[in-house]
Amino acid sequence: MLYDKIGILGGGQLGLMLLQAAIDWNLDIHVLDPDADAPCSRIAPHFQQGSLQDYDTVYAFGKDLDVITIEIEKVNVDALEALEKEGKRVYPQPLVIRQIQDKRIQKQFYRVNKLPTADFILTESRADVARYPDFLPAFHKLGKDGYDGRGVQRISSEADLNKAFDAPGLLEKAVDFEKEIAVIVARNPEGHMKTFPVVEMVFHPEHNLVEYLFAPAEIKDDVRFRAEEIASQTAEAFGIVGLLAVEMFVTKDGEILINEVAPRPHNSGHHTIRANATSQYEQHWRAILGLPLGSTHQYAPAAMVNLLGEAGYTGPAYYQGMETLLATSEVFPFLYGKAITKPYRKMGHVTIMDENTERLKEKVALVQRSVRVVSGEWTVDS
Amino acid sequence: MLYDKIGILGGGQLGLMLLQAAIDWNLDIHVLDPDADAPCSRIAPHFQQGSLQDYDTVYAFGKDLDVITIEIEKVNVDALEALEKEGKRVYPQPLVIRQIQDKRIQKQFYRVNKLPTADFILTESRADVARYPDFLPAFHKLGKDGYDGRGVQRISSEADLNKAFDAPGLLEKAVDFEKEIAVIVARNPEGHMKTFPVVEMVFHPEHNLVEYLFAPAEIKDDVRFRAEEIASQTAEAFGIVGLLAVEMFVTKDGEILINEVAPRPHNSGHHTIRANATSQYEQHWRAILGLPLGSTHQYAPAAMVNLLGEAGYTGPAYYQGMETLLATSEVFPFLYGKAITKPYRKMGHVTIMDENTERLKEKVALVQRSVRVVSGEWTVDS
Repeated sequence: MLYDKIGILGGGQLGLMLLQAAIDWNLDIHVLDPDADAPCSRIAPHFQQGSLQDYDTVYAFGKDLDVITIEIEKVNVDALEALEKEGKRVYPQPLVIRQIQDKRIQKQFYRVNKLPTADFILTESRADVARYPDFLPAFHKLGKDGYDGRGVQRISSEADLNKAFDAPGLLEKAVDFEKEIAVIVARNPEGHMKTFPVVEMVFHPEHNLVEYLFAPAEIKDDVRFRAEEIASQTAEAFGIVGLLAVEMFVTKDGEILINEVAPRPHNSGHHTIRANATSQYEQHWRAILGLPLGSTHQYAPAAMVNLLGEAGYTGPAYYQGMETLLATSEVFPFLYGKAITKPYRKMGHVTIMDENTERLKEKVALVQRSVRVVSGEWTVDS
Repeated sequence: MLYDKIGILGGGQLGLMLLQAAIDWNLDIHVLDPDADAPCSRIAPHFQQGSLQDYDTVYAFGKDLDVITIEIEKVNVDALEALEKEGKRVYPQPLVIRQIQDKRIQKQFYRVNKLPTADFILTESRADVARYPDFLPAFHKLGKDGYDGRGVQRISSEADLNKAFDAPGLLEKAVDFEKEIAVIVARNPEGHMKTFPVVEMVFHPEHNLVEYLFAPAEIKDDVRFRAEEIASQTAEAFGIVGLLAVEMFVTKDGEILINEVAPRPHNSGHHTIRANATSQYEQHWRAILGLPLGSTHQYAPAAMVNLLGEAGYTGPAYYQGMETLLATSEVFPFLYGKAITKPYRKMGHVTIMDENTERLKEKVALVQRSVRVVSGEWTVDS
């Protein structure tokens, strides 16, 4: 398995961290990304610039490889299906990507498989959304191509109906949730599964992006067991080989509802590089290469802060405040090597560890007030 | 500091692990190695094939860089001194490399600085060694170019005198030691220092190569404090910027004697990637880039087993028994990506962790009996 030729569709930060983990086993990795300067471009043993959505490009990329995986869902699934038919090991499987790529199919999948999720109605257009005033407050979600908080609009009342997307989507009943949590589960071809400890996510109130997370989540044991069980059941229902990140709401009644899933390494698992015996990235390799899954034991409480491009700055990236981070014990920045910063672009993250959870949160606050990702003064665009 | 152009002389496994750590900060790394297929060649952002010992090659490699470091001591120090004079930050400093490169100078350095080390006599030739029968049993060490146990011969009695090197060297009194330990210390340009927990080394009886090590060492607190103190005093005496690995003997009386030092990341610190908050590789970057040193806190007891090429096999490398390793909790192989295995060549290592030190040692034994680095059957050379 360690001698296979392996391809990753996508060369962003998740691909970069997959590459970093792959160094341990000297894996022969080939990366495809449309951006010649993608984070993986300088490190990948083999890097190819090309579209992830073009059939011919994806097919040609995969045809001489043994194993093909993804770090982003927005890829040409038809090409992956053709490669799978020719006997390539494509993990996650094209069918799983197809089911998850379209949120409408994803939500119906939960319903059919009796997996708990918020109630929803499929909609075809903006006018269609207006037919369900009694279903509000709700979120309108685009079926395809939403990511990082884009493709989601809150429709609190009829006054917000103009915010709905005029494209196929779904209207999901707003959940009065207390916490948002995530569980990353790995499943290998033999069907063995392992979950990482539950993480708790804290969202930025405006931008709908994870501001920081910490693990293990501050939840009761019964909620934790139930969250791990739902994540495993979901991975089993999809029959996925690889990682599945399952984001869930915990309601005020302690009920758990699946929000959405990602069939790949996930933002909510960055801290596992530092905090856990096996990182999510190594676990992904273990799963898709048919190797035994590793221990997900966590050595100490951990938090993760995303480093987003500061509002008002577009241009060559500069990270302010790094010395403060590096001077603080068990605080570890990870910079993605994206040349250009833009408002709210994911430019890096910081993993923070501490045996003491109070100190952990103090360090999170310190990181949040110390670091800014801006562009050099000569390129400030405010 | 994070925006400097950085060069590493040497692209072997230590360079590879430096590169892996450098991914976190998107460091701009250039690697020079004589072997076009060196472990770093596929991963380095910039890789150049060339001699490490040729003045012009090393000078040309360094002249457009900001910071230059090493992963091997056998480099052209004259070129590094010229680069240092031009204002490049060369860490470790050329003078330090020069003092350590030649074991004769290194040993005299300890004597001058009153750092504890075994008694010794400088020798110029084999005939010279024969003049000191009363100093036996002793080890005869080549002044230059010894490494990985080569360049050292035990001279137990006059009958062994033919084993002595016929070149400048030193005769070091055999120490009746109980344990061999190592402390890696980092020192930054401001003179701040941090030590990693003491490691205890277990040597292969024949090949004089580390067979496995574990940390923290099983030694009394006073021995531990003294070992850390000696390591720090040694780093301070050299005035080194970067890592200094200090190998020491603990005698049966609890006395500590410096065996030898290496001014770079060291085999005895591989486990820190998995077991410690900051790895020795990240700590090296912090030290030479003038950044605050990181916490060396160790999360659990750890051991490290070198994967050496099996005797009798020379050819394309194949790692047997990997599945057994990967199926064992908290056992992490690291393969160096050297195409060709040779008897006793360092082909990889395995880091092993366990909260329980008994189980840790059981896993070490399992690793030792499970793994072999051989060449494919068609190339067996026995």
